[in-house]
Amino acid sequence: MFQNNPLSGLLFLLALTWGSFSGGMPHVVIGGILALVSATATGLWLRADKEALASGALGYNGVLTGLALTYFLGPGLVTLAYATVGGIVTTFVMLGPVNADKPWRVVAHTYPFILTTWIFLLATQGFHAIPAATPQVELPPIDASLPYSQQIWDFFSALLHSISQIYFKENALSALLIVAGLAAGSLAAAVFAVMGACLAVLTAHLGGIESELISSGVQGFSPVLTAIAFGTVFYQGINPRVCVLAGVATVVTVIAQSALHTLLDPLSLPTLSAPFDLVAWMFFLNRKHIDKPRPE
Amino acid sequence: MFQNNPLSGLLFLLALTWGSFSGGMPHVVIGGILALVSATATGLWLRADKEALASGALGYNGVLTGLALTYFLGPGLVTLAYATVGGIVTTFVMLGPVNADKPWRVVAHTYPFILTTWIFLLATQGFHAIPAATPQVELPPIDASLPYSQQIWDFFSALLHSISQIYFKENALSALLIVAGLAAGSLAAAVFAVMGACLAVLTAHLGGIESELISSGVQGFSPVLTAIAFGTVFYQGINPRVCVLAGVATVVTVIAQSALHTLLDPLSLPTLSAPFDLVAWMFFLNRKHIDKPRPE
Amino acid sequence: MFQNNPLSGLLFLLALTWGSFSGGMPHVVIGGILALVSATATGLWLRADKEALASGALGYNGVLTGLALTYFLGPGLVTLAYATVGGIVTTFVMLGPVNADKPWRVVAHTYPFILTTWIFLLATQGFHAIPAATPQVELPPIDASLPYSQQIWDFFSALLHSISQIYFKENALSALLIVAGLAAGSLAAAVFAVMGACLAVLTAHLGGIESELISSGVQGFSPVLTAIAFGTVFYQGINPRVCVLAGVATVVTVIAQSALHTLLDPLSLPTLSAPFDLVAWMFFLNRKHIDKPRPE
Repeated sequence: MFQNNPLSGLLFLLALTWGSFSGGMPHVVIGGILALVSATATGLWLRADKEALASGALGYNGVLTGLALTYFLGPGLVTLAYATVGGIVTTFVMLGPVNADKPWRVVAHTYPFILTTWIFLLATQGFHAIPAATPQVELPPIDASLPYSQQIWDFFSALLHSISQIYFKENALSALLIVAGLAAGSLAAAVFAVMGACLAVLTAHLGGIESELISSGVQGFSPVLTAIAFGTVFYQGINPRVCVLAGVATVVTVIAQSALHTLLDPLSLPTLSAPFDLVAWMFFLNRKHIDKPRPE
Repeated sequence: MFQNNPLSGLLFLLALTWGSFSGGMPHVVIGGILALVSATATGLWLRADKEALASGALGYNGVLTGLALTYFLGPGLVTLAYATVGGIVTTFVMLGPVNADKPWRVVAHTYPFILTTWIFLLATQGFHAIPAATPQVELPPIDASLPYSQQIWDFFSALLHSISQIYFKENALSALLIVAGLAAGSLAAAVFAVMGACLAVLTAHLGGIESELISSGVQGFSPVLTAIAFGTVFYQGINPRVCVLAGVATVVTVIAQSALHTLLDPLSLPTLSAPFDLVAWMFFLNRKHIDKPRPE
Repeated sequence: MFQNNPLSGLLFLLALTWGSFSGGMPHVVIGGILALVSATATGLWLRADKEALASGALGYNGVLTGLALTYFLGPGLVTLAYATVGGIVTTFVMLGPVNADKPWRVVAHTYPFILTTWIFLLATQGFHAIPAATPQVELPPIDASLPYSQQIWDFFSALLHSISQIYFKENALSALLIVAGLAAGSLAAAVFAVMGACLAVLTAHLGGIESELISSGVQGFSPVLTAIAFGTVFYQGINPRVCVLAGVATVVTVIAQSALHTLLDPLSLPTLSAPFDLVAWMFFLNRKHIDKPRPE
């Protein structure tokens, strides 16, 4: 989540734990911790740069891989072992040639997590010893004839879920803890997160995305990442140009989310944060074009 | 189409407009113009290099995205708005990090258009507010017992359609205007276009491609692009080595076309000019190997 | 197979020829030789560096493309011509921009072969003039109630087939010839090949892969390549760190194999050696991290 603040870290951990336990999936936290440990240990064994280790990028990608694998596969010891191996592989990908020469703060993307998780999830379709994915809890269809106050509640609920889904939780309290964690690190990040969630939910409604996908927050979490990253991480300072860019990028992330969903759903793969990474890659040069002084 | 000549531009525009109106799809031209404007405006807002703007690469990719989105989606205001957003995104991709450091004349490829169009078309499968694609006009099956004169006509018809399909038109007059536009810029380009179309149609026949795909020209337009680019753009001067290379690349483009069709058809995605880009990428080093003096 | 030794080459050729004839597929050898010739001739025509030609990488990728196309398509003159064109394209990809600036010994990967073979196989689904693939010989299901001695035999059989599948042969004698060829070039390479095959078969059993896939060796040949490459090619010297890395990479290759199988099977594409290339790419930086002196 782009924050190097200990208080932020603590609040994110609380959000995570609360979301897992209240969702009846405590093993997801265990998987996340195991992968965090194995990813960091691999980084130490490979003698990664101190800067890389300190930035938390290794642990961040590792913990996401662990969370995703235990969330999308059935519970059990084999799954936990699989998540641990996933953490190891994530670090190898993270330290791979693509990143080797880039300054670390630039590549705070999540593709090592995404690539590792997709490969490991695809592989389980051949590995019969690994328990099949638990069927995701189906959401009750939303009644279109609900009173207006209910629709407003749905909107805010979707908004909060968009934020908490960043850590695979559909939980309003987790969302508030995450926003608090962001605010502890950077008030601007928290503002962009909330604005990004609003814009994403609106865009999805305008485009006619199915209501269940919106209110569960699955549709919104990549756009929230985009809004935070484009608003507060990729550029120095916040100015109108950066705000316009963050807005456009957030809308395009909703489109990319739908495109990747179409592509990956037949493979039973979740989109994870790939829409964010895709848009970050497509838009990236603009650091130069947004920051540089106007040519005279 | 690799030409920086105003007369060429005018003839291409005529070809485009005639093809759209005679095909009963005037909104396709409107979508193309909207995306052209939004792509260029985005380039100006991002303060792209003057060279990049002058080369027309931004507008070229933008107009293709607009044409493709309005051609493959149902008509309507939402589609036109979607095409306008597509133009904006095309420019972001165009100015992205992959291109940033390369000299512009080299990257006159069409991947920003292809990537943007694929993402936007895939996304519409989730966006229920965007009208579904109009069913493409089915071609009447060709009667194999036709007299020989008819078969020769089919061959020339396929040849012309291969050229006009570059701008999504199956229209012989548009094809002649395009060839005239090419000839106005470079006589060699027009010759390679016609030779490439011949070679592509012959290769497709030899390989046993379905006749409908050949005569509609869908099979031929990427090979025509390959023939022009390898024959007159990628290398300095035309010599026997360049001609052999252009011929091989054209045949391989027909193979790549069939491969990508197999891959993309289940996703309801058109191949666009991706076969040309794939072959250009695969063959590209040869600039060095074709141009450099013979080692003694 | 990473060896520049004439004796190794002779033994590999013997393994290949024996496997093809004993499997009733003599045309596979012819296809391999035709593609070898066309790939090398193309390299000469393009005036590739002498180092590139001498290293055998051109011929190696060409011969694999020829073997794969004739193995996976029906026999006939058209298939042999197609394999010859495949050899030409492999060399273009091999000499392409991605490789152009890299030292040759580093890129002894097999992606030009993989990319070319996939494109050519996908294309045949549209080319009705090219004979459809011969149905692969189905393996008899393995009886789980076999006596223990039989199961040990199955294990060794799977191990040998994993090695011989490197050249598309399920043949124990070919496997022994390949190991002998490796040993003639480098004893360590032969040891890593056998150890890698053991580890791969064990991992596949633990993961619950279907027995038929294991005993045919299809599951094992990419991990064997990984074990040889990580153990004896990518790093200077063999030490405990390199052995641990080779072991981890071999296990991950089994996972990557299963993932790619899930992805490619619906497209009727074989995984070829893509799992090896994927893992080599993911793990590659580690050259630096394994070789460099411990920081003091």
